[in-house]
Amino acid sequence: MSAAQPQVGMVMGSQSDWATLRHGAETLAQLDVPHEVRIVSAHRTPQRLVEYATGARARGLRVIIAGAGGAAHLPGMLAALTPLPVFGVPVESHALKGMDSLLSIVQMPAGVPVGTLAIGKAGAINAALLAAAVLALTDERIATALDAWRERQTAAVALVPVDEGNATQP
Amino acid sequence: MSAAQPQVGMVMGSQSDWATLRHGAETLAQLDVPHEVRIVSAHRTPQRLVEYATGARARGLRVIIAGAGGAAHLPGMLAALTPLPVFGVPVESHALKGMDSLLSIVQMPAGVPVGTLAIGKAGAINAALLAAAVLALTDERIATALDAWRERQTAAVALVPVDEGNATQP
Amino acid sequence: MSAAQPQVGMVMGSQSDWATLRHGAETLAQLDVPHEVRIVSAHRTPQRLVEYATGARARGLRVIIAGAGGAAHLPGMLAALTPLPVFGVPVESHALKGMDSLLSIVQMPAGVPVGTLAIGKAGAINAALLAAAVLALTDERIATALDAWRERQTAAVALVPVDEGNATQP
Amino acid sequence: MSAAQPQVGMVMGSQSDWATLRHGAETLAQLDVPHEVRIVSAHRTPQRLVEYATGARARGLRVIIAGAGGAAHLPGMLAALTPLPVFGVPVESHALKGMDSLLSIVQMPAGVPVGTLAIGKAGAINAALLAAAVLALTDERIATALDAWRERQTAAVALVPVDEGNATQP
Amino acid sequence: MSAAQPQVGMVMGSQSDWATLRHGAETLAQLDVPHEVRIVSAHRTPQRLVEYATGARARGLRVIIAGAGGAAHLPGMLAALTPLPVFGVPVESHALKGMDSLLSIVQMPAGVPVGTLAIGKAGAINAALLAAAVLALTDERIATALDAWRERQTAAVALVPVDEGNATQP
Amino acid sequence: MSAAQPQVGMVMGSQSDWATLRHGAETLAQLDVPHEVRIVSAHRTPQRLVEYATGARARGLRVIIAGAGGAAHLPGMLAALTPLPVFGVPVESHALKGMDSLLSIVQMPAGVPVGTLAIGKAGAINAALLAAAVLALTDERIATALDAWRERQTAAVALVPVDEGNATQP
Amino acid sequence: MSAAQPQVGMVMGSQSDWATLRHGAETLAQLDVPHEVRIVSAHRTPQRLVEYATGARARGLRVIIAGAGGAAHLPGMLAALTPLPVFGVPVESHALKGMDSLLSIVQMPAGVPVGTLAIGKAGAINAALLAAAVLALTDERIATALDAWRERQTAAVALVPVDEGNATQP
Amino acid sequence: MSAAQPQVGMVMGSQSDWATLRHGAETLAQLDVPHEVRIVSAHRTPQRLVEYATGARARGLRVIIAGAGGAAHLPGMLAALTPLPVFGVPVESHALKGMDSLLSIVQMPAGVPVGTLAIGKAGAINAALLAAAVLALTDERIATALDAWRERQTAAVALVPVDEGNATQP
Repeated sequence: MSAAQPQVGMVMGSQSDWATLRHGAETLAQLDVPHEVRIVSAHRTPQRLVEYATGARARGLRVIIAGAGGAAHLPGMLAALTPLPVFGVPVESHALKGMDSLLSIVQMPAGVPVGTLAIGKAGAINAALLAAAVLALTDERIATALDAWRERQTAAVALVPVDEGNATQP
Repeated sequence: MSAAQPQVGMVMGSQSDWATLRHGAETLAQLDVPHEVRIVSAHRTPQRLVEYATGARARGLRVIIAGAGGAAHLPGMLAALTPLPVFGVPVESHALKGMDSLLSIVQMPAGVPVGTLAIGKAGAINAALLAAAVLALTDERIATALDAWRERQTAAVALVPVDEGNATQP
Repeated sequence: MSAAQPQVGMVMGSQSDWATLRHGAETLAQLDVPHEVRIVSAHRTPQRLVEYATGARARGLRVIIAGAGGAAHLPGMLAALTPLPVFGVPVESHALKGMDSLLSIVQMPAGVPVGTLAIGKAGAINAALLAAAVLALTDERIATALDAWRERQTAAVALVPVDEGNATQP
Repeated sequence: MSAAQPQVGMVMGSQSDWATLRHGAETLAQLDVPHEVRIVSAHRTPQRLVEYATGARARGLRVIIAGAGGAAHLPGMLAALTPLPVFGVPVESHALKGMDSLLSIVQMPAGVPVGTLAIGKAGAINAALLAAAVLALTDERIATALDAWRERQTAAVALVPVDEGNATQP
Repeated sequence: MSAAQPQVGMVMGSQSDWATLRHGAETLAQLDVPHEVRIVSAHRTPQRLVEYATGARARGLRVIIAGAGGAAHLPGMLAALTPLPVFGVPVESHALKGMDSLLSIVQMPAGVPVGTLAIGKAGAINAALLAAAVLALTDERIATALDAWRERQTAAVALVPVDEGNATQP
Repeated sequence: MSAAQPQVGMVMGSQSDWATLRHGAETLAQLDVPHEVRIVSAHRTPQRLVEYATGARARGLRVIIAGAGGAAHLPGMLAALTPLPVFGVPVESHALKGMDSLLSIVQMPAGVPVGTLAIGKAGAINAALLAAAVLALTDERIATALDAWRERQTAAVALVPVDEGNATQP
Repeated sequence: MSAAQPQVGMVMGSQSDWATLRHGAETLAQLDVPHEVRIVSAHRTPQRLVEYATGARARGLRVIIAGAGGAAHLPGMLAALTPLPVFGVPVESHALKGMDSLLSIVQMPAGVPVGTLAIGKAGAINAALLAAAVLALTDERIATALDAWRERQTAAVALVPVDEGNATQP
Repeated sequence: MSAAQPQVGMVMGSQSDWATLRHGAETLAQLDVPHEVRIVSAHRTPQRLVEYATGARARGLRVIIAGAGGAAHLPGMLAALTPLPVFGVPVESHALKGMDSLLSIVQMPAGVPVGTLAIGKAGAINAALLAAAVLALTDERIATALDAWRERQTAAVALVPVDEGNATQP
């Protein structure tokens, strides 16, 4: 978490979501995007939710990343309470494997958008990249870091797959 | 809507949900359960949501019925903000036919329950019956009305089906 | 299980459901709600089902919690046979992960309601909390216990997530 | 419905299911299988369900066909209460298109079988054919009728499709 | 497998299905129902499929139980080729957990029925019980065995669940 | 249907599938690919299925397109009985909208492939295009026709959408 | 479409998607956000896709909104080819009602994000609002327009539902 | 990988897909079909995708096999850029078990076909067999090898299942 004024607020519904969201936080750190990380439970701490969302813009945040699982109301309720762009990360749930999380986040009614990413770790990383892409529109430093990140990613794709020790696969 | 002090607060996310929820209101009226009906949008009127939920118990409400569709956050957010029992009605959505509404309402995390009914009209009627069953525990008049309602329902089931004009069926 | 006259009857379809339902029983115990726990299989002991349901109100029960998996008929059949409020807990099934249990419980036709909770452990805990919320309407002691439980839950949510030993996550 | 002693009992959860089940009754009639048709609602007439199922074998029934929709408990509860073979027809439900009906019927736990057919009209016809196939094992007349029915069916399949008036198709 | 003339033919699509179907074979053995067990792959041994199905009735078989996974065509193709009652067991598949198996078996078009049981082990046991119920219609010995099996099953349901060593549950 | 020796055999499970498959036949005609069209029901005409599939290569067919709905066994059974490439078209079913058709066709076990296209009309057209692409590998005339078809398709995509009379959309 | 330098590029896979996307274009117009509208088919005009995406940033675009249905590859491929933020709108498909569109858009692998909105019209409107929220971070005029839009939306929610002519509802 | 001029190009979206696709490569090797194996990520290496697809026919490739997971755009984008037949293998994804991969590959719009195989290892093997079947149309050596492969497969199916050490099964 950067010491600079956070530009991205990453919130999650519970401690258990951190195992997913931390991959997003690490990506923000790699891109040197100042950010903060908080637990805000829509259901267990609704007042904290209201305070976090309604104060976010004034506190200087520019993008909110919210992850939650199951009946995941956190991203949508944040989006209802702040004009800032909100990106949602469906955390994989136990029984339904995140399909409930995904639908609870992405199927917002017209009027209150949540830009939703993939279920789980990929979604957390991509929420960070999307937040960086938004900030990069007016922050040359982040734009440069993001372009470099994408170039490294492309360069890292080998041309031919290699056999690995654990080659068994269903 | 009864003139007496409402015991059931029926809320819905938008005007369009009324076509579903009204079947529940009619059932409450049949059972002579005092109730009120309100539109409270979790996403478009989040402050109204907070006020409605936090004031419900003090205003004398005893049960809340909440219906919403899509990423349906209304029942769960009400349940987060009031200790009263909350019953949720998943309204049938356009594309996903209420599966999104159902999962968004029923898959609440441990700690904040929403008693969820079926998708659509059946769920609205059943939310009313369940609310009446709760009130009937300590209200002899409602208990009697509910018992009679159930007896009439049983008596109304014919023994043999009858052919109807529109017999085509897929 | 309290020694007092049980107010909540918790039933399940088989011994294997106890691993899920016991979390609900523990929650009832935490709230000091008098309850009993029974195995009642709709399919293997249908006569026991009829006897349990038809005698429940007269025996002093006020709420029934029923958990079952797969083609889960127990909650709905109880609701058909007693005017008491019935709350259903879909137990996670092996192949379909509880989606079959959920739909079998929640999609009740108009006329016979089952207030359905989430699949699995969360649903069991929430069924207990919802039963307590119903009883709390007219039982000051349970109301106080439930309010305290909810306050402790809110207070227990940390502001910032902590890294844990097993940080790997898919 | 034949005047002879019914060998197949066809039951359905409500009048509205008749639009589906009647196709099965017509098939039984085509095969000259003596049968009766009844409405038995597991949820609205549970006592009728118990009486119908427990008396079926003694009354001379040999196969039961049961159709229901949504949280369809009728086939499974009949199977719990009679040793006769029970075949289930998932009636197409409004919101979930019979997926809830199908899972509620087919996912029975070990110990109480329901032989489940397809959702809707095809399932109703096939339940009749399957009941006839069971009776045909020891009834030469039905065996002959069923063989002829199957031969006619095979013979009726044209070799080349023909264009029809309403050729538009999505 | 009984030495007597087999009355039930149990077939499966591959060796790997035996882990599921064997539970059905064990149930047939418990009920002393003469049966045979074969591997018949609709896709890898289509000629064996044709031979098995077209010769089944003449060989004295009275019921066929067929289990397969994924795009499970075995039960339906058998039903297309024999007038005997066919009961299908959807074997749990790797990726889709048997939902593909279930739909491939149950959704047969009008004209060719497959009585479908639950996904996996429960379905295999229930296919055996359903086959026995069919045979019991005209075989007093099997009828008695089946009634006893069902009574033992009912009697084996404890009234109260017991805590077990491995009490953790998701 | 071309008068030349058919190279593509298009088969479907019933007359009702023609409304879908005809779009594929029209595409084959546009590309001037000699083809034949037949109804072959895996379930109602299994012997016709065996004859068609086992004789296909000797008769000079080079690709088979097979469309069916519900528990769609036709494509897979053809693929079991001929070494020719088989392409499957899942026809949209009534209740489950072709999801059953799709899984019944695509989830073939290792050893017997069916190249599966999209549900419905798009799949029928694409099966024709894929068959043409296969033939085009060694048929210059078809290759030229296919390239031209693809170029026309690309050229036909307007740069800017136009408003249409029926602009309402859900 | 504004005459000013477009800041938002709205693209769709085909003319038929315009019935959905136009609601997003109208929302952008209401907020006075300069934008352009184009048809870019990933599958039928892949070169146009490459050109549009690779030139977008240099042409002054700041956000891309992309809508497509079925196997919807347009949003993801655009995101692969431009560092600009891409928001995806799953267009409702015929058979699978947009579930295929949704999963094809939202389940992007780590490294290439698409912020995904709801299926259909609501998603199109919300993509426009999210794009506006991004631009509003550094454009006071758009920020003011967006705040006003949200306030009007909140103010437009009536407190009590009204009966309407077409009150029937499933 | 054969030293001869490759006729089949097998590509996959990432190194992790190799655990699935290698089963297809092994099958091609068993049939002695000259092939090459490459990693081509539609999202991380879009330019490599364009080059691979547009150059494939000129380089002498005749069939392309493409495997990818999640929002799997690789097969469809290849099919958009080459007239060669493209066969798609949905790789099993973590959360949604390959249902997302399947729908992203199979639900292509009319005009650009991808012949889709089963999710996972079975699909990889079958893509190889289908590619061989296409080549076998004009390559006697491959036709002979494929026929032999299929005969060995049929011969390898035992008539009776055998008990195995690990007989437990859910």
